[in-house]
Amino acid sequence: MELKVYGHRVSQPSRAIMIFCKANNIEFEEVSVDLSKGEHKSPEFKEINPVGQVPAIIHGELKLFESHAILIYLASAFPGVADHWYPADLVKRAKLHSVLDWHHSNLRRGAATYVFNSRLAAVFGLPLNPQAAAEAEKCLISSLSTIESFWLEDSGKFLLGANQPSIADLSLVCEIMQLELLDENDRNRILGPYKKVQQWIENTKNAINPQFDELHGALYHLSATLRKQ
Amino acid sequence: MELKVYGHRVSQPSRAIMIFCKANNIEFEEVSVDLSKGEHKSPEFKEINPVGQVPAIIHGELKLFESHAILIYLASAFPGVADHWYPADLVKRAKLHSVLDWHHSNLRRGAATYVFNSRLAAVFGLPLNPQAAAEAEKCLISSLSTIESFWLEDSGKFLLGANQPSIADLSLVCEIMQLELLDENDRNRILGPYKKVQQWIENTKNAINPQFDELHGALYHLSATLRKQ
Repeated sequence: MELKVYGHRVSQPSRAIMIFCKANNIEFEEVSVDLSKGEHKSPEFKEINPVGQVPAIIHGELKLFESHAILIYLASAFPGVADHWYPADLVKRAKLHSVLDWHHSNLRRGAATYVFNSRLAAVFGLPLNPQAAAEAEKCLISSLSTIESFWLEDSGKFLLGANQPSIADLSLVCEIMQLELLDENDRNRILGPYKKVQQWIENTKNAINPQFDELHGALYHLSATLRKQ
Repeated sequence: MELKVYGHRVSQPSRAIMIFCKANNIEFEEVSVDLSKGEHKSPEFKEINPVGQVPAIIHGELKLFESHAILIYLASAFPGVADHWYPADLVKRAKLHSVLDWHHSNLRRGAATYVFNSRLAAVFGLPLNPQAAAEAEKCLISSLSTIESFWLEDSGKFLLGANQPSIADLSLVCEIMQLELLDENDRNRILGPYKKVQQWIENTKNAINPQFDELHGALYHLSATLRKQ
């Protein structure tokens, strides 16, 4: 049964899905949806995801969107995905759901809104919004602080004290990687105080390379272009 | 193993947890956390949930927060919970995760932010914020429209075309019930155009009564008090 992944490599949840597939030898057809051309709002794409957001997948009869739901589905439906990505143990799974749910209203909201309003809007020809960026920065800083002091436990290299990465490590680290789109000083100002977070990002990259860096190529390229301007 | 549920009945995700337990004969001790007194930010409560939000549970060694994660855990850990609440079928479960994830950044964000900034802030002695309320209203209206036209399918009385309620019906309907805290005209103005949504709210209440109304007593009481003022 063919798997199609609709996304854009500059979209952090799109990357998470594609990295997950590549790291787990899940074959898929990548269908690029160009956000800068508004393809995610086209009638053709809305047939796949009526809400008009990437990523989305088609697998057999199933059309699915929301990246966490997709990651859980892929980890459950494809044989051979190692347990550490989405543990079967009820307590481990419950805590994983907790961090994934927390992500939505905290790190996702802070990071995505900050990057968009302080930098990325200009790429789409829209005005920057310093007030919205300032509000989002508070949420982002608070979220990084919660990761540093709570979600990263001393017992392991990954979230929730695990010794191997889960879909939550992948999702949250892909989110933080969007900060590469900021001016370098701004990125360092924000991430600088969070030493455990920085080490965890490195641990996650190292555990999921070469696929992690391969799928981040478009982001690194856009980052370099923006920083030259 | 004793289950403790920390929450407040005026908090919509707290109600969802307690209704779920009562409807499924899961015994629990309700520990009231008075939000108006800031008890959710107390050192004692932060021992249970460092993020300082309700609801949270303790079950044996497990401390857990984020209401969707809690609902999934309870549906999985307690024997005798009927399959319709959290289907074992991978495709049904994937779609359920999709609507639960969508809830965070859409209906939850719109409804909770609108109710708080247009009405509830005053209850906590804080100023109302008409600009934030206006932004949130757009998100709320768009979310209701997506439920009406997409998540409610014609094949069944509940979300995703199901014939019996899931944890998503419970969570999302509890969210919309917060609109009872608005002035009645305002509530009717917002919900009025969405006939399928209104019918679905009734279907969900009817399917989960008397527990649904029992746990909404505090909300109905606060609503009546606010509307008299």
